[in-house]
Amino acid sequence: MSTEQRLHIDATALTQFAAAVLEAKGVASADAAITADVLVQADLRGIVSHGVARLRRYVDGLDSGLMKAKPDTTVVNETPATALIDADGGLGQPASHLAMSMAIEKAEKLGAGFVTVRNSNHYGFAGYYPLMALQRGCVGISMTNSAVLVVPTFARNALLGTNPIAVAAPGGSEPPFVLDMATSTVPRGKLEVYNRQEQSIPMGWATDAAGEPTDDAGKVLRNFQQLAGGGLLPMGGAGELLGGHKGYGLAVLVEVLSAVLSGAAHADQVYPKDADGKPLPANLGHFFGALKIDAFRPQAEFEASMDDLQQRLKGADRVEGQDRIWVAGEKEHDSHAQQSVHGITVGAKVSADLLALSKEYGVAIDGTLDDSTDT
Amino acid sequence: MSTEQRLHIDATALTQFAAAVLEAKGVASADAAITADVLVQADLRGIVSHGVARLRRYVDGLDSGLMKAKPDTTVVNETPATALIDADGGLGQPASHLAMSMAIEKAEKLGAGFVTVRNSNHYGFAGYYPLMALQRGCVGISMTNSAVLVVPTFARNALLGTNPIAVAAPGGSEPPFVLDMATSTVPRGKLEVYNRQEQSIPMGWATDAAGEPTDDAGKVLRNFQQLAGGGLLPMGGAGELLGGHKGYGLAVLVEVLSAVLSGAAHADQVYPKDADGKPLPANLGHFFGALKIDAFRPQAEFEASMDDLQQRLKGADRVEGQDRIWVAGEKEHDSHAQQSVHGITVGAKVSADLLALSKEYGVAIDGTLDDSTDT
Repeated sequence: MSTEQRLHIDATALTQFAAAVLEAKGVASADAAITADVLVQADLRGIVSHGVARLRRYVDGLDSGLMKAKPDTTVVNETPATALIDADGGLGQPASHLAMSMAIEKAEKLGAGFVTVRNSNHYGFAGYYPLMALQRGCVGISMTNSAVLVVPTFARNALLGTNPIAVAAPGGSEPPFVLDMATSTVPRGKLEVYNRQEQSIPMGWATDAAGEPTDDAGKVLRNFQQLAGGGLLPMGGAGELLGGHKGYGLAVLVEVLSAVLSGAAHADQVYPKDADGKPLPANLGHFFGALKIDAFRPQAEFEASMDDLQQRLKGADRVEGQDRIWVAGEKEHDSHAQQSVHGITVGAKVSADLLALSKEYGVAIDGTLDDSTDT
Repeated sequence: MSTEQRLHIDATALTQFAAAVLEAKGVASADAAITADVLVQADLRGIVSHGVARLRRYVDGLDSGLMKAKPDTTVVNETPATALIDADGGLGQPASHLAMSMAIEKAEKLGAGFVTVRNSNHYGFAGYYPLMALQRGCVGISMTNSAVLVVPTFARNALLGTNPIAVAAPGGSEPPFVLDMATSTVPRGKLEVYNRQEQSIPMGWATDAAGEPTDDAGKVLRNFQQLAGGGLLPMGGAGELLGGHKGYGLAVLVEVLSAVLSGAAHADQVYPKDADGKPLPANLGHFFGALKIDAFRPQAEFEASMDDLQQRLKGADRVEGQDRIWVAGEKEHDSHAQQSVHGITVGAKVSADLLALSKEYGVAIDGTLDDSTDT
């Protein structure tokens, strides 16, 4: 345990800081602003694993040349309701923002729009893009493939990413429904938390080098580093008894729509390495969709049904000891409302990192530092 | 245990029989042919729970007037890339076939097509409609809401259906990828099998009347009949530890796209009853989508990537004791190939039912009867 400082900062100031750091790395102003917004929106929603904690990795990617600061992003193919974008190895967020914007415009004109992206990088939290669709009267969809961590059912080694699925639909008086889920039982970060706390993990989260379920998070994380085998289990756990083959199927589905349909790299080829094990540029694929609600029925009717559905779920009789039934996106909506007003408190480790970036790039960071006790 | 007779029959003959029974109930010839095909394709693929075993229920529905034999199916709204169909309380299959056909046509013209259906009934196995898309160079998608059986995370009573998600994409030399999965851990039928065999079910499949996980299948089934509470658990099981909230989120997602977007009934209102508990006509909602592959990239390239992805998965090192890694749809593809050539053997109970229908409606059934031992 050590006493460290935590940064307390307004969301707008944090966004400006992150954008300025990216601009200092040569990223165009508009692209930097989008990327920073995707990061800070994750922090606001309480998805800290995908927030400004990632800024250092993007800076490193730009530094090493694995990511291009000024990519030549192009629309490779386009039909009235679809498009394929080549992100040319730039940051994932600007290309994804463009793709989702195109999907929404197509949906506004024709009812539906679907756009895929290839040659891309990490695109932030999957829910960001569906949330863009809500403001334009659409249901939004986003998926991406990702770094290999997840074992197919009955396989010993990881071959798939945690491949998230995100879908958002607006409510009326209720908050929007925002499903944003990895198709693995848990993300790698969860194992890191348990490992730091020296807690054993539930059987059903991960497998050891032989592919057998294990409760030892440290072992799984070491095996990842050493490429020794095993990995995270798909939703439903090991084998087929509790539906692990369905989680595996969903992970493959994301691979098909994000990578196979776009022509990005799939499965274990997403983050390639050269013969000496040195990383080569990534080639991630993303999938975005928008459906215009009033192409199907009047939006007010849709929203009233969403409210009724949510109220039925939340008003249901509860299992003893439970004081609330949640709807997907509610926790994040509450977090966003809270932190938009009161500011974001960044964890000690990431705070130190942001302060270091501030010095390295001569970019001021407009927050206050609190002493905190961090384990 | 009793010795009973099992019907062995060619798929075409079985389809003709099922269609003739539906025609005898007043269903239009084309609609009867579609419905029969959806049923028999399920049997061919080994999904017997959704095969001709359902024919009796459809006949009963038509008999009671809960389903209309000759509905006035209408396209309520249409845009270039979307449509909403009102099935007018008819069989689910003809309206769904129309909806998927429209989605495919729109995708052929514009790249993407999405069609929802309301005022519908059971539509058969979810994978049928995505499979239609494959023959036209599209990725296909289908979802439906369904009878209430599944408990939301932390809720005591069932409020959602087993709400399946089905997506199909063509392979080249490999069979198509066909994910067709309930968003619950298991379907109700699985509990019935365990109950008949007096086996305890794994914790994580279902809950008792208090909403606590149980291993007693008989208790869960009795509670369903008596509306005593509890139900099937979403994928991931009880609570959030193993991802149950994700399965719950997927079930709500299906409800949103199938029912809220179409204006069908949602959650526990899908199969309404009057004040005396007498069933009223159902109002199910379905969701169909098609994405034209060559709107994104040449189909031959897509298929080559699908083959490579499948071969990487199937060729992976296996966990000890496992002799095969599967890709979604492969088992069903093998079953279809086998039974298309050698015919379908219908279980004893369903065989008896089909023979009874044959007598009741004076429709010949062109198969042979084998003695069999059935538990």
